[in-house]
Amino acid sequence: MRPTKNPFRLSNASDKDRLSEIYRVAARIICEKGYDATSMNDIAEAVGITKAGIYHHIPGKKDLLFSIMNFGMDSLDEQVIIPAREVEDAEQRLHTIITNHVQLITSRSTPQGNNPVTIIVDEVAGLTAAHRRKIDQRKRAYVDLVRETLEELKAEGKLCEVDVTTASFSLLGMILWLSRWYNPGGRLGPEQIAEEITKIALGGLLRPKASRARR
Amino acid sequence: MRPTKNPFRLSNASDKDRLSEIYRVAARIICEKGYDATSMNDIAEAVGITKAGIYHHIPGKKDLLFSIMNFGMDSLDEQVIIPAREVEDAEQRLHTIITNHVQLITSRSTPQGNNPVTIIVDEVAGLTAAHRRKIDQRKRAYVDLVRETLEELKAEGKLCEVDVTTASFSLLGMILWLSRWYNPGGRLGPEQIAEEITKIALGGLLRPKASRARR
Repeated sequence: MRPTKNPFRLSNASDKDRLSEIYRVAARIICEKGYDATSMNDIAEAVGITKAGIYHHIPGKKDLLFSIMNFGMDSLDEQVIIPAREVEDAEQRLHTIITNHVQLITSRSTPQGNNPVTIIVDEVAGLTAAHRRKIDQRKRAYVDLVRETLEELKAEGKLCEVDVTTASFSLLGMILWLSRWYNPGGRLGPEQIAEEITKIALGGLLRPKASRARR
Repeated sequence: MRPTKNPFRLSNASDKDRLSEIYRVAARIICEKGYDATSMNDIAEAVGITKAGIYHHIPGKKDLLFSIMNFGMDSLDEQVIIPAREVEDAEQRLHTIITNHVQLITSRSTPQGNNPVTIIVDEVAGLTAAHRRKIDQRKRAYVDLVRETLEELKAEGKLCEVDVTTASFSLLGMILWLSRWYNPGGRLGPEQIAEEITKIALGGLLRPKASRARR
């Protein structure tokens, strides 16, 4: 096959895939070097496209953090929030939230063993106030989904005697922290990690089936 | 009382207290504005000392992130790791780790509702490779303490059937996430938060006492 003449060099991928790849690579470099030390050139080189090519996809470094965060929140919407909202049973929905979110994080880990997009989503220091409000709003929608799910479980007598707010954030902390310690070359594969985190989280939040029956 | 002529203006505090105050304030500003946008002047103004005063305490912005991280890890040593290592019983030690770490985070929350020092400790992107190794080493000592404690509980038949590595990091994620969501003006005080997190964590990790007896 002849080498392509297309300067963008990602000719097999759709535009959306290209953008995803650029955001993921940019997030990885920003996590390594810091945002200010990262240049458009670094990103172009790491993606393997020309400098002209990178500017075809993103207008510049301004708003790049915000774009990466929205990209991260879009993935969360598509892969976690929307599928979870379709699950009527609260216990099953909680399973879906945990499993799908763990899957989202582990599927995008780098060989260095973290998920830079997930990490960037919490680096709100570089945002303008207006952008920060938008990202906060999107995050709040997710926290609300988790909280409402736990409230339903409480109403059904399935939740342990725990504070719902603390439980919601503790669950999110467990899941999100994975982006910082998961090692894709490690002993446990993504499915096993999802299973272990589900066990630990549900063990801490849900009443054992026997004790529910006794209520 | 006459206003002091001392340009450092923190004359009632010891040098160590002054440094702590400076690190905490610097961490808060860095979390708000980003590291590169934060000037020595911003920090001096926020602490309420002169620019000469701030340079009396810290040599400059270079190595500031590293100093804040070491300050954070010193606090972790003093308030969590050392007291926990003194507890012989593994279950009691796990209690100490959770309670003391939660207390460390909530006691240093800002009115904006986060603990910036805890957050900065995970912002390793700005560090040199040598500094990063040092911080990673200090963090590893803490992860090892948690992991060894869970291994002991496993050997004693007190741990649920969970993977010890996943359990260690999940516990740390729950605790560390608190630095991002805890609201010091909120409904739950620090003691209640510690109690709730302990309940959720131990519920997910430890076998119920009845089932241990049956083993």
